Amino acid sequence: MEVATTITEVRRLVRQARQRGRTIGLVPTMGALHPGHVSLIEAAAGRCDFIVVSIFVNPTQFGPSEDFAKYPRPIEQDLAICKDHGVDLVFTPSAEEMYGQGGLTWVEVERLTSPLCGRFRPGHFRGVTTVCAKLFNIVLPDLAFFGQKDAQQAVVIRRMVKDLNMPLEIVVCPTVREPDGLAMSSRNRYLSPSHRGQAATIYRALRHGEDEIRRGVKDAGKLADAITAILRQVPGIALQYVSIVDAESLQPKDPVTGEVLVAVAVRIGSTRLIDNIVVDAG
Amino acid sequence: MEVATTITEVRRLVRQARQRGRTIGLVPTMGALHPGHVSLIEAAAGRCDFIVVSIFVNPTQFGPSEDFAKYPRPIEQDLAICKDHGVDLVFTPSAEEMYGQGGLTWVEVERLTSPLCGRFRPGHFRGVTTVCAKLFNIVLPDLAFFGQKDAQQAVVIRRMVKDLNMPLEIVVCPTVREPDGLAMSSRNRYLSPSHRGQAATIYRALRHGEDEIRRGVKDAGKLADAITAILRQVPGIALQYVSIVDAESLQPKDPVTGEVLVAVAVRIGSTRLIDNIVVDAG
Repeated sequence: MEVATTITEVRRLVRQARQRGRTIGLVPTMGALHPGHVSLIEAAAGRCDFIVVSIFVNPTQFGPSEDFAKYPRPIEQDLAICKDHGVDLVFTPSAEEMYGQGGLTWVEVERLTSPLCGRFRPGHFRGVTTVCAKLFNIVLPDLAFFGQKDAQQAVVIRRMVKDLNMPLEIVVCPTVREPDGLAMSSRNRYLSPSHRGQAATIYRALRHGEDEIRRGVKDAGKLADAITAILRQVPGIALQYVSIVDAESLQPKDPVTGEVLVAVAVRIGSTRLIDNIVVDAG
Repeated sequence: MEVATTITEVRRLVRQARQRGRTIGLVPTMGALHPGHVSLIEAAAGRCDFIVVSIFVNPTQFGPSEDFAKYPRPIEQDLAICKDHGVDLVFTPSAEEMYGQGGLTWVEVERLTSPLCGRFRPGHFRGVTTVCAKLFNIVLPDLAFFGQKDAQQAVVIRRMVKDLNMPLEIVVCPTVREPDGLAMSSRNRYLSPSHRGQAATIYRALRHGEDEIRRGVKDAGKLADAITAILRQVPGIALQYVSIVDAESLQPKDPVTGEVLVAVAVRIGSTRLIDNIVVDAG
């Protein structure tokens, strides 16, 4: 496994691989790798010959009061995980390597970035789309792999790729969960043991929403209330949103029909967690 | 020479050329080709093996009161010019092929797009950068060629390519001029004979500014006044701006030192014309 810290070096190694006829798969991450990331690496290995994992805690997608400084950076562990799972190349640039004296150029996706997390994290998706555009241009992958846990991010990036005719395919992989249902996230390690226990309620609440949809409940407000009621039973959870939206347009869907995204964001203590399920509401 | 109207077809033909080891040069145009464009094609032929010219009157770079509808579209003449000059592939997409049901994604360059034409054409550069990002992603050229006549556009696109790590080189070619000095432009054909005569004053005024700089005038305001005075002698000319800025940052430069861009925008009748010169002010 190679580890590159410069754009020039990544380009050289990817070019070599391509000249040998390999297809290139990119898994963009912020590190602190967990089984969710590993599932992306495995999905990439199933479809590509040369697997690139980028590890970059991207400053432009964090708000000023968010957790950029304390975001975990266990680089040695991350490299060991990549090596264990057959990654060919890890790209770990510095912020200076990625942004130099500061970029003036932004890639912005309108409309899809306004609801859900967009309401609570102004500028977040602009940072995500800009850094992904950069990573795609640096690595030039045939495929790039993202997790369904960040559902809005996946929709936004898919749309960016389509709108800008970027020459790659976006693959979105299922959310990987702990045994009690909590979605794997690098931020789970912020949770105290008691908060960690409470966090399992998020998925329970989503599953209850799914059950209600399958029982024929079509009223989006009632569904949101039912999910909210379960989350409110846990005193440590502060709700940001419960939204039931079209899985592609991310617009509110009421009555609930077709493929819907049921998405939740909460704070537990100072930790922000998101989760979602996609349900075919018929 | 091949002519493609679809993205799929362009990609197929470029991929073929690349597989034969050809380097790819792109000349993005809005058609109505003139000797300025021909000089770009010739520059591309000098450095690349496979020349792609795109002809697309890009709606997103025109303001609502601008000349999108009347912009000249002499496609048969344009194809003949391309063929005569050894172009390998002309890409003439429809607006629907380029934007489908309407894109949500924009590429924006901050700061560099605010002064000069940015003040008079809000949204223009956003349209330019977005369509260029799309064309670059569709054609995947090694080099793309732009004219110095659109100096701010060249600076903005160079910066976009750098900031987003786009894998191509931008080549900016000298302005081509009529015998009386008027910069070649597709919009020159809007001019009535009397306006056409007046239009030569623009370059005369720029040259006067250059002479003043070479004579040691460093005061940007005085230089702008001297240029303005010449333009004001022509009653048909309505001035938009005379600006003396740093050639790279496009920020005002006073006193005038180093590489400066002396740029002018005017209206003659209903036709908007721009021109510029770069002067090393020492």
